[in-house]
Amino acid sequence: MNAQLEEPGGTVRLYVEAPLAGGARVEANEGQAHYLLHVMRAKVGDRVSLFNGRDGQWLARLDQVSKRGCALVCEKPTRAQTESPDLWLCFAPIKRTPADYVVQKATELGVSVLQPVITRRTIVSRVNLERMRANTIEAAEQSDRLDVPEIRETVSLDKLFANWDANRRVLFCDEGGDAQPIAEALGSSLKGEAFAILTGPEGGFAPAERDAIRAHGFVIPISLGPRILRADTAALASLAIWQAIVGDWK
Amino acid sequence: MNAQLEEPGGTVRLYVEAPLAGGARVEANEGQAHYLLHVMRAKVGDRVSLFNGRDGQWLARLDQVSKRGCALVCEKPTRAQTESPDLWLCFAPIKRTPADYVVQKATELGVSVLQPVITRRTIVSRVNLERMRANTIEAAEQSDRLDVPEIRETVSLDKLFANWDANRRVLFCDEGGDAQPIAEALGSSLKGEAFAILTGPEGGFAPAERDAIRAHGFVIPISLGPRILRADTAALASLAIWQAIVGDWK
Repeated sequence: MNAQLEEPGGTVRLYVEAPLAGGARVEANEGQAHYLLHVMRAKVGDRVSLFNGRDGQWLARLDQVSKRGCALVCEKPTRAQTESPDLWLCFAPIKRTPADYVVQKATELGVSVLQPVITRRTIVSRVNLERMRANTIEAAEQSDRLDVPEIRETVSLDKLFANWDANRRVLFCDEGGDAQPIAEALGSSLKGEAFAILTGPEGGFAPAERDAIRAHGFVIPISLGPRILRADTAALASLAIWQAIVGDWK
Repeated sequence: MNAQLEEPGGTVRLYVEAPLAGGARVEANEGQAHYLLHVMRAKVGDRVSLFNGRDGQWLARLDQVSKRGCALVCEKPTRAQTESPDLWLCFAPIKRTPADYVVQKATELGVSVLQPVITRRTIVSRVNLERMRANTIEAAEQSDRLDVPEIRETVSLDKLFANWDANRRVLFCDEGGDAQPIAEALGSSLKGEAFAILTGPEGGFAPAERDAIRAHGFVIPISLGPRILRADTAALASLAIWQAIVGDWK
């Protein structure tokens, strides 16, 4: 039996859209075929892991190689599907740090939805959702996730909260100074609840935006300590602390 | 009175080596003079904030401008010196993410010492300490810190622990699977204690290294959840969680 393909980071895992089940045949897309055949130099009979966000993880055998690509056949399930915690990241895109980085780290940290938000002081004019999607898939493959975070269409701050489900609490990274420390705000009674983290752009939220955000009953303003964090640092710190205290890190 | 210079991120703060006291005169270095005179277009009489890690923060007036640079005179103290929490980051440099990023984020997150460590699987051959130093200064200026993290010379893992002060606990980011969740390991009894966080390279620590690390009585192996985090994500997540639970975030 041929071995499972190994990268330096571990065994090769690919995200696919197709259903996975015993004997199911999956065509690799162009990028995957290139990676398998030319980067990993895979041969017919080599094995990789597949996941699609629904059917768990499957060991699959490289079955057919042609000029146009390759196909994989599912052999056996190796992990049952698990659900990620229900944690959204609503973030104003920032200019200084590439969105790639935030998206990659947020995926590793187990975010379920990535929601770009345009605020008054947002200076990034265009959010490349397709590129974000590619980044989430790569990070999910490498971080051993069984699903890929959903990427929502960019919305304005007003629109974000216009139809908000009040059962989903919002951890608002508030630089105003009078917010509660995050570890105090996240009590064990909140374990299993739906959450979103909200971070602003360079220069923060405008005062009127801040007042409007804090007026919502589902919003919990939180402080991230005495130093000024960049927006992307605040996002990643909040995600990690949420996971450690009320998420799936225990 | 001329106004204090403002950047998009807030008022201009500069780190200097010289002592700060009422009437003290400080020569700006070349980079600072260029920034003040040509980027910010400062004029004599404009004011900036200075800090040196020892004497608190001072409002200083641009006093003299020549072809060779400029000088600043301390007018009044605006913040008393505070101590940062005693938290070191001992990290194996990684290839994929520039050290710049880790250094910048760790500084924002309040680290006091940055210690590069060479392990068996470390593939980065050269660590640019001078560049790291420049990054810590820039991040300290922008994050409102009153000090700059110390950067230690690169050491091997063996040497790191050869003269370790057993009173400093080591949070060891352990991918082995049987470690305690980080939030459980960090009880409130540990508030105010000296700590270091230890993260490995791409591919993690070798099994023998892992055994040797765990054999030390001052080492607390901790888990960062069910997903595989890149080394830099693990470092930043641990720093943030430490600050939130036992550091100065409350």
